[in-house]
Amino acid sequence: MVLYLLDLLGMVVFAASGALAALHAHLDLLGVVVIAAITAIGGGTLRDVLLNRHPIFWIADPRPLWAIVLAALATILYVHLLPVPRDALLVADALGLALFAMSGAQLAERAGHGFLVIVFMGTLTGVGGGILRDVLTTQIPLVLRQDIYASAAMAGIALYRLMQLLGVGQRLAFGLGMAGIVLLRLSAIRWGLQLPVF
Amino acid sequence: MVLYLLDLLGMVVFAASGALAALHAHLDLLGVVVIAAITAIGGGTLRDVLLNRHPIFWIADPRPLWAIVLAALATILYVHLLPVPRDALLVADALGLALFAMSGAQLAERAGHGFLVIVFMGTLTGVGGGILRDVLTTQIPLVLRQDIYASAAMAGIALYRLMQLLGVGQRLAFGLGMAGIVLLRLSAIRWGLQLPVF
Amino acid sequence: MVLYLLDLLGMVVFAASGALAALHAHLDLLGVVVIAAITAIGGGTLRDVLLNRHPIFWIADPRPLWAIVLAALATILYVHLLPVPRDALLVADALGLALFAMSGAQLAERAGHGFLVIVFMGTLTGVGGGILRDVLTTQIPLVLRQDIYASAAMAGIALYRLMQLLGVGQRLAFGLGMAGIVLLRLSAIRWGLQLPVF
Repeated sequence: MVLYLLDLLGMVVFAASGALAALHAHLDLLGVVVIAAITAIGGGTLRDVLLNRHPIFWIADPRPLWAIVLAALATILYVHLLPVPRDALLVADALGLALFAMSGAQLAERAGHGFLVIVFMGTLTGVGGGILRDVLTTQIPLVLRQDIYASAAMAGIALYRLMQLLGVGQRLAFGLGMAGIVLLRLSAIRWGLQLPVF
Repeated sequence: MVLYLLDLLGMVVFAASGALAALHAHLDLLGVVVIAAITAIGGGTLRDVLLNRHPIFWIADPRPLWAIVLAALATILYVHLLPVPRDALLVADALGLALFAMSGAQLAERAGHGFLVIVFMGTLTGVGGGILRDVLTTQIPLVLRQDIYASAAMAGIALYRLMQLLGVGQRLAFGLGMAGIVLLRLSAIRWGLQLPVF
Repeated sequence: MVLYLLDLLGMVVFAASGALAALHAHLDLLGVVVIAAITAIGGGTLRDVLLNRHPIFWIADPRPLWAIVLAALATILYVHLLPVPRDALLVADALGLALFAMSGAQLAERAGHGFLVIVFMGTLTGVGGGILRDVLTTQIPLVLRQDIYASAAMAGIALYRLMQLLGVGQRLAFGLGMAGIVLLRLSAIRWGLQLPVF
C-alpha cells in the first residue's frame, strides 16, 4: 500500500516534469497531456516490454492514468498562477527517480536476473520516461548529459544488491538503495557534481 | 473484407505521407521507402507490442508491405511529375487516422480493456506512425503541436464507446465514431481549429 | 562458437561507433557508455521484441554487456591518446552490419517467416542500433541518408535467400550473404556510391 502510493507519487511528479517540458516546447493542450503521460509511464512500459511482463502495468491497472491527466492539467493551471518552484520539483523528481529505479530493479530481481540486468532494468525504469520526453521534444536526452542522474540510479541499485549480499534484510536494503539515490541526486544538484565530459 | 480494404487504404495513405516527409528531408531512395513503411505500420506495431498481440500484424500477413513499397515509389514518381495535391492528401490522411484509431480501439475493446485503455490504444494506433516519422526526421511530432489531430481520434473513440453504452449496435457505433473523427479533422483543417496553446 | 565470437565482435564494433558519436555530442561518461550499449544491442532488442523472442538476447546472456562497457571505456581512452583510424572503424562497422543483418535474417527464417519479413528483420537487426544512436543524439539517422548502408544489408540477405532457393547449402549461402554485404558496403565507402536522392 505504501509502495503503491509512493509509485503514484512518482508518476505524478514525472507527469508534472513532462508537462513543464511540453509547455516549454509550446505544445497544445493535448500535447502537454500526452508528453506528461509518456514521461510518467514510459520507463515502466519499456521495462515491462523488455521483461515480457504482460499486461503492461498501466493496462493491468489504468487508474494511475487519471492521476497523470490531472497532474498535467494542474501543472498547466499552476504555471499560469504561480512561479514554478524549481527546487521543489527537482526534489520531487529525485524521489520519483529513486522509486522507479528501485521498483524496476526489484522486478528484475524477482524474475531471477543477474546483477547487470537488474542494474540496467532499474536504471531504464527510472530514466526511460525522461528519455522519451526529451526525444519527443527533440532534445538530446537530459539524463545523458546532465550531472549525476542515471548514475545515481545505478549507484543506488548497486548499493541495494550489495546490502543484500551482506545479509541485510530486503526491506532495509530497499530503503538504503532509495535513500542513496535521493541523496546522490540532491548532492549533485546542490553542489553541481558532474561526471567527466571528454 | 471491406475493413481489410479500408485498412490497406489507410496504410497506403500513411505511406504516402511518410514518403513526402522523407523526400522533404532529402533522404535517399531507401530512406524514403523505410520512412514510408514506418509511418504506415508504426502505430499498429506499437499497439501489438503493448497489447502483446503476436505475431505482429505485418508479420502475420506481410502482403500490405508490398503495397506500402509501391505507394512510396509512386509518391516519388508523382512529385516529379505533378504538383502535390495538399488537400487531397489531408483528406486521405483524415480517413487513415479514423480507420487506424477505430480499429485499434476495437482491438483493445475485444481484449476486454476499459475506457481509458481503449481510447489510448486507439489514439496510439492512429498517431503512432506519424510520431515515429517525425522523430526519425528530427521534427517535434506534428500531432503534438498541430490543430485537432490526436484529439479528433480521442473524441471519435469516446463517441463510439458512448454509442455502445446507449445501446447502439456495434457496426453503427463504429461508423459513427469514424465519421466523427473524419469530420472533426476536416473541420479543423477547413477552419483552422486548434486546441489552446499556453 | 565462431558465430558467437563474430557476434561479440559486431557488438564491440558497434559499441565503439556509439561511443564516438556520444563523445562528439559532448555527453558525460555515463552517457557515452549508455549510447555505446544502445547502439550495440538496440537492433537485436527491436528484433527480439517484434519477433516475441523472450528472454531478449542480452537478458538471457548478459555477458556481452561487459564487453560493451569495456569497449566504450577503451574508445574514450583511445581518442585521447591516438588519432581515430576512420577507415579501420568503417571496415569493422561493415563487418558488424553484415553479421547482425545475417543473424537477424536467420532467426526470422527459422521462425518460419517469408521473404519480406526475413529481409526486414535482418535489416532492422543490422541498422536498428545505429538508428537509436542517432535519434538519441538528435541526428537524422545516418542509415537513412547515407551511401549504400541499409541497402547493402537488404541485398546481402536477398542473395542469401536466393542462394538457398537455388539449392546452395545453408552455410555457404550464409557466408555469401555476409560477403555480399561487406563488399557492397566497402565499395560504397571506397567509391562513394549512393542511392539516388530526389
